Amino acid sequence: MNKIRMGMVGGGQGAFIGAVHRIAASLDGEIELVCGAFSSTKEKSVSSGLSLYLEESRCYEDYYEMFKQELLLSEDERMEFVAIVTPNHLHFPIAKLAIEHGFHVMSDKPATLSLAQAYELKAVLEKHSVLYGLTHTYNGYPLIKQAKYLIEQGELGNIVKIVVEYSQGWLASKSDETSKQASWRLDPEKSGISCCMGDIGVHAANLAEYVSGLNISDICADLTATVDGRTLDDDGTVLLKFSNGAKGLLLASQVSVGDENNLKLRIYGDKKSIEWSHLSPNTLWLKSNDEPTQQIRAGVGKMCEAAQQALRTPAGHPEGYLEAFGNIYLNFAKQIRAYQNHEICDNHTFDKQAFDVPGINEAIRGMAFIEGAVKASQSEIKWHPFMPKIANKEAN
Amino acid sequence: MNKIRMGMVGGGQGAFIGAVHRIAASLDGEIELVCGAFSSTKEKSVSSGLSLYLEESRCYEDYYEMFKQELLLSEDERMEFVAIVTPNHLHFPIAKLAIEHGFHVMSDKPATLSLAQAYELKAVLEKHSVLYGLTHTYNGYPLIKQAKYLIEQGELGNIVKIVVEYSQGWLASKSDETSKQASWRLDPEKSGISCCMGDIGVHAANLAEYVSGLNISDICADLTATVDGRTLDDDGTVLLKFSNGAKGLLLASQVSVGDENNLKLRIYGDKKSIEWSHLSPNTLWLKSNDEPTQQIRAGVGKMCEAAQQALRTPAGHPEGYLEAFGNIYLNFAKQIRAYQNHEICDNHTFDKQAFDVPGINEAIRGMAFIEGAVKASQSEIKWHPFMPKIANKEAN
Amino acid sequence: MNKIRMGMVGGGQGAFIGAVHRIAASLDGEIELVCGAFSSTKEKSVSSGLSLYLEESRCYEDYYEMFKQELLLSEDERMEFVAIVTPNHLHFPIAKLAIEHGFHVMSDKPATLSLAQAYELKAVLEKHSVLYGLTHTYNGYPLIKQAKYLIEQGELGNIVKIVVEYSQGWLASKSDETSKQASWRLDPEKSGISCCMGDIGVHAANLAEYVSGLNISDICADLTATVDGRTLDDDGTVLLKFSNGAKGLLLASQVSVGDENNLKLRIYGDKKSIEWSHLSPNTLWLKSNDEPTQQIRAGVGKMCEAAQQALRTPAGHPEGYLEAFGNIYLNFAKQIRAYQNHEICDNHTFDKQAFDVPGINEAIRGMAFIEGAVKASQSEIKWHPFMPKIANKEAN
Amino acid sequence: MNKIRMGMVGGGQGAFIGAVHRIAASLDGEIELVCGAFSSTKEKSVSSGLSLYLEESRCYEDYYEMFKQELLLSEDERMEFVAIVTPNHLHFPIAKLAIEHGFHVMSDKPATLSLAQAYELKAVLEKHSVLYGLTHTYNGYPLIKQAKYLIEQGELGNIVKIVVEYSQGWLASKSDETSKQASWRLDPEKSGISCCMGDIGVHAANLAEYVSGLNISDICADLTATVDGRTLDDDGTVLLKFSNGAKGLLLASQVSVGDENNLKLRIYGDKKSIEWSHLSPNTLWLKSNDEPTQQIRAGVGKMCEAAQQALRTPAGHPEGYLEAFGNIYLNFAKQIRAYQNHEICDNHTFDKQAFDVPGINEAIRGMAFIEGAVKASQSEIKWHPFMPKIANKEAN
Repeated sequence: MNKIRMGMVGGGQGAFIGAVHRIAASLDGEIELVCGAFSSTKEKSVSSGLSLYLEESRCYEDYYEMFKQELLLSEDERMEFVAIVTPNHLHFPIAKLAIEHGFHVMSDKPATLSLAQAYELKAVLEKHSVLYGLTHTYNGYPLIKQAKYLIEQGELGNIVKIVVEYSQGWLASKSDETSKQASWRLDPEKSGISCCMGDIGVHAANLAEYVSGLNISDICADLTATVDGRTLDDDGTVLLKFSNGAKGLLLASQVSVGDENNLKLRIYGDKKSIEWSHLSPNTLWLKSNDEPTQQIRAGVGKMCEAAQQALRTPAGHPEGYLEAFGNIYLNFAKQIRAYQNHEICDNHTFDKQAFDVPGINEAIRGMAFIEGAVKASQSEIKWHPFMPKIANKEAN
Repeated sequence: MNKIRMGMVGGGQGAFIGAVHRIAASLDGEIELVCGAFSSTKEKSVSSGLSLYLEESRCYEDYYEMFKQELLLSEDERMEFVAIVTPNHLHFPIAKLAIEHGFHVMSDKPATLSLAQAYELKAVLEKHSVLYGLTHTYNGYPLIKQAKYLIEQGELGNIVKIVVEYSQGWLASKSDETSKQASWRLDPEKSGISCCMGDIGVHAANLAEYVSGLNISDICADLTATVDGRTLDDDGTVLLKFSNGAKGLLLASQVSVGDENNLKLRIYGDKKSIEWSHLSPNTLWLKSNDEPTQQIRAGVGKMCEAAQQALRTPAGHPEGYLEAFGNIYLNFAKQIRAYQNHEICDNHTFDKQAFDVPGINEAIRGMAFIEGAVKASQSEIKWHPFMPKIANKEAN
Repeated sequence: MNKIRMGMVGGGQGAFIGAVHRIAASLDGEIELVCGAFSSTKEKSVSSGLSLYLEESRCYEDYYEMFKQELLLSEDERMEFVAIVTPNHLHFPIAKLAIEHGFHVMSDKPATLSLAQAYELKAVLEKHSVLYGLTHTYNGYPLIKQAKYLIEQGELGNIVKIVVEYSQGWLASKSDETSKQASWRLDPEKSGISCCMGDIGVHAANLAEYVSGLNISDICADLTATVDGRTLDDDGTVLLKFSNGAKGLLLASQVSVGDENNLKLRIYGDKKSIEWSHLSPNTLWLKSNDEPTQQIRAGVGKMCEAAQQALRTPAGHPEGYLEAFGNIYLNFAKQIRAYQNHEICDNHTFDKQAFDVPGINEAIRGMAFIEGAVKASQSEIKWHPFMPKIANKEAN
Repeated sequence: MNKIRMGMVGGGQGAFIGAVHRIAASLDGEIELVCGAFSSTKEKSVSSGLSLYLEESRCYEDYYEMFKQELLLSEDERMEFVAIVTPNHLHFPIAKLAIEHGFHVMSDKPATLSLAQAYELKAVLEKHSVLYGLTHTYNGYPLIKQAKYLIEQGELGNIVKIVVEYSQGWLASKSDETSKQASWRLDPEKSGISCCMGDIGVHAANLAEYVSGLNISDICADLTATVDGRTLDDDGTVLLKFSNGAKGLLLASQVSVGDENNLKLRIYGDKKSIEWSHLSPNTLWLKSNDEPTQQIRAGVGKMCEAAQQALRTPAGHPEGYLEAFGNIYLNFAKQIRAYQNHEICDNHTFDKQAFDVPGINEAIRGMAFIEGAVKASQSEIKWHPFMPKIANKEAN
């Protein structure tokens, strides 16, 4: 048996997230990078590919060329799936073309540039037998899986409140806008109608739903373009109602000076509550009113199976972001193996979380969140349904 | 010279906050308790007073009696100020009567049962030459004063965002309602139109304004009576706009299981930010994007004068809630000394923070916050002005 | 009934620990300061006393005068006990004279200047019916009492290892030596044969024995006078063996730059372990290998009676050093009440911890520790018995 | 250009550290595993190798066979270095044979079973032109490199005290001895003369020397076999003197119930101090007496080049143990590239840290520490030189 073969679009020299995807994909020795269209020019793409020890012939000018050429290779040589690590506006066209060529897709988030595109992507997927994954990285942390498990087991009782925050400071000033990372995120053509909610708010919304098992039903939003001259939000707060009546709060910011990547999740039930912070990801707090707070540490004592499988070392060996990212890829690799073995095909994977990989449903809910937050923020009315009325019918 | 003589209304055996006021008042040896109307019956009042080593003759049946009898005593024997530590509905009538008898007042918060009463209290104060203080305890922490100072000095730049949270879990379930502390807080006749916002939200609002030096200008609120059968809110989120255009967020909860008394304040400027948590009150974080976060510790290095005066021990000796509470009283004692020395009289003290004691203006803004949050929560419109239109004219 | 009347020797203006004793003593309204010999001159003593609202006639020139004059007052007016808050070399003569005049004594630590003096003090106490307390402050923390309780209940199993550290940085450089606090501590005539071990190491040793319920049996020591020109140790490590065979380690330092007052205690049993840090005194960690660590918080859930009585506020209201110090005094006040009621007299109180106040036995063990550590450090042999041979017979 | 080709001895299914080495080696895409002798039987070795997607022909029965067969392959196909991940007693013979076959070596620690073997290994290396690395993993953390840099820059002033602890609880009870990991570590034939000091104490000693740039000169040790029936130490404390006169303390334990992998380092200078904890590896504390403590976070602001190169993600993305381990391999890969380019050969690499990979000198000092601690513990004399007299001549 061979490693699963991955191609990559984007992620040339100087990019941040491309390197992260490559490390994450190869972390467990199940996936190998075999080809890529890394940059905007053939020359740069080849240069990037050679530094990654790829054959020059498989460093392509663009993704059209890559999909075409790879299809000409023998089945046990050609790329099996493509990792899409470009700016947002390219996620959809690349994913669509890959699917139409029969390649599985692992896309960075947000899945598309609009909710409409997300529905279109779902329609394309329904016509082809391929797998689709979305890197909502934070789902990959072992203790996030343990938190989800505790809630499923009823440890918290009925959930009454969810507070999720994702606070960064890196776009706090005008002078921060010149970096490669900043410039496309602040450009509506490449980023979509939101900067902050599209880049990180959507992660927070996904995490809240993933761990709680609840769906957001209504939102009230106040987004701000804090720094002069910006057309997209760089900060915002969204009040939430959940499907079971629980209240919630999502705070996202890119202008909170001094905050690194402060993703925090608190879920309160009527019996107990959990608290998790991305900056100390190997600790989960389980709290109640009358007993000592439990400091659950990754690998200590008995963990649920999903958490155990997401750990590579014993207790006391800090694992972090790359490992969490690796878990998304590891589960996707297992999904592809199951596909190779004809245990699953596309039709099944849309509907369930059998392999614990965020997919097309998360893609649609993510785009609904981003568009919904922007529209709700522009309204003088307080509350708005999470899914637009028409969309509602289709999505749930 | 003698200690300043304090009387007390409320705070009989079994009460929580009365004992706190007594410790706080006597902490620095400047104030002594000389009389009280501690309970609802003469017998209980005497019993409480005797256990506090008071003379039986100065343990009164009620506050009418106390004010009347104390006035009959000689000037260097009689009580100089009254500490009001009853449930909310009695704060106003007791304060009003005390002022009319010429006694200074230190009132627990919220100052009154309604905004209208707060205006009435201000009118009464304007007619009498006495001092009025309000125990917004959290102002008393040394590092809160240091944070205020850093902001005044411009260390943070322009403030763009304020997040303040006050999260407790003690009212999370129906069975928690039977305690003495809980029952009156959930009773609209004694508590007013809000439980959670009136009890702790108002502290958070005060703290945000005190430290930032900004006024809240607009609010959007979503309050909830989480537990079945409650008529008053036990949880809520309030979106904030500040006078300088900064955005903000106030979260208060009494149903967040496992949270003790989690008051947290984060203020973000365009240069730096500060972070403080009540559960580690001797640490203040000063953060920026490009330099190491500074962990400012109470008593380490140079602190502003207000912080230095609020500390009783050198660095490394944890001080806490009682000391912070004591600082409110210590500053009030200084104010009374200045009054005794004819350096100040009532007219001046309403207008400025010369002695750093929350007063009638804080009382009015506090009641505006509580009433405003409840009304905004009931509205389908998102944003509402912080001060009602009519009130606005008078208050600012 | 009246408050218990306290006199004070030392603690004039500018002193640190005197003010701490006064706050601690008066915290709970059970004790009042009635007289003092605060300073080296009558003038300064009066000035200090007046600022504390004492009558001038009870501000004495020295402690001889104070003891003599107070005895002349009526029984319900005169001071009942004396708090000794001078530099070390005066602890013994003042305590001795007070006892001989029939006053109870609360002494700052270390009890005396030498082990021989400690034995002499015990002999004096055996001849008089008075009470003797020693302010090993850290015993007063509620969660220290909870830790002691957990160990008594067998929660940790057999204790196998104890690590206690007390690390400060305030004497790290030559220039730090000029302060009033530093100069006498570095002077052998006033401080005794040790600076660091005598000032803080002895607290750490006491805490380890108090919480564990074990006695240190053997020590190996390495003390250092880190800063040039010092004759006394400012840093040191002591290896420990305990009476049950457990190993241990005591680290004390006054030259650990940047450390405030970092007293930390870890006790490991063969089943569980506890961890406590003075800088977060309201948290106690209970750890095991296979279950989540329990974060025990002051006031949350059920605590042992001693811990509960040592708390003045509900969970979530940080209490600190002054409150812990106050608990030593509160227990001493209860002891004095029992004495007044003829429930106890001196003979009983030497032998047991009925009132949980450190006493003459702790005084002797403390002096044995200080002298033993200095001597062991000078030796080329590794291990030495904790109590000198002769002493051994008498002390255990 | 191709990836560097690695073979592995040990690390078959069920082993812990082998998988860690594989992930670490491949993390940056510079090294690929091409062959291995993973287990004690051919069958198991093949099974392990196939699960790693190796060719069956390169899954060898033992390391003799592997070295012999790989030499027969063409130069651009054969393994270039071997990773040794067996129990301790095999480190030396495998490394020796590999070197004699001309293969570079990356060995797990401790390097050998005795100090004598370590000297012999050095002698072998001096006769062959190959590279030798030792996985003192904790050196690989970015903030450890930053700490080392700050000290080199003189930020701390003269170092006066070093405290290093490595505390675990996993061997606390008899029942923990049955696991594969535990059984060989407690067996003198496989583990050497020490369990705890050999397994983790040696890491702590190395870390203290690496960061401080100082050498330990003298030790006083007290090791304990805490659990009944053990012949090797499972806990111990070592007092240290350093080459510049600084004092220190090394605490290592495998019986500290509830401790995971608590490696902590504190280094005190006469100006500032640093503190680092393995369980929060992305934070470094820089402390002084008069300024706020600086919380240095990985990736925030300007870091030294070695720290920057050891980071794979921007600030706020927690990196951990696998990444630190990966940094040892990444630097070894750079060293091998330099060797391939004839920029260095063996003679140079013994003497300097040009590529920041622990090597044969660290191997010798590590074995000196382990043997020295055991012998010092058995002695009644307090202090002992770190290097045995004869060894001394050769090693420094």
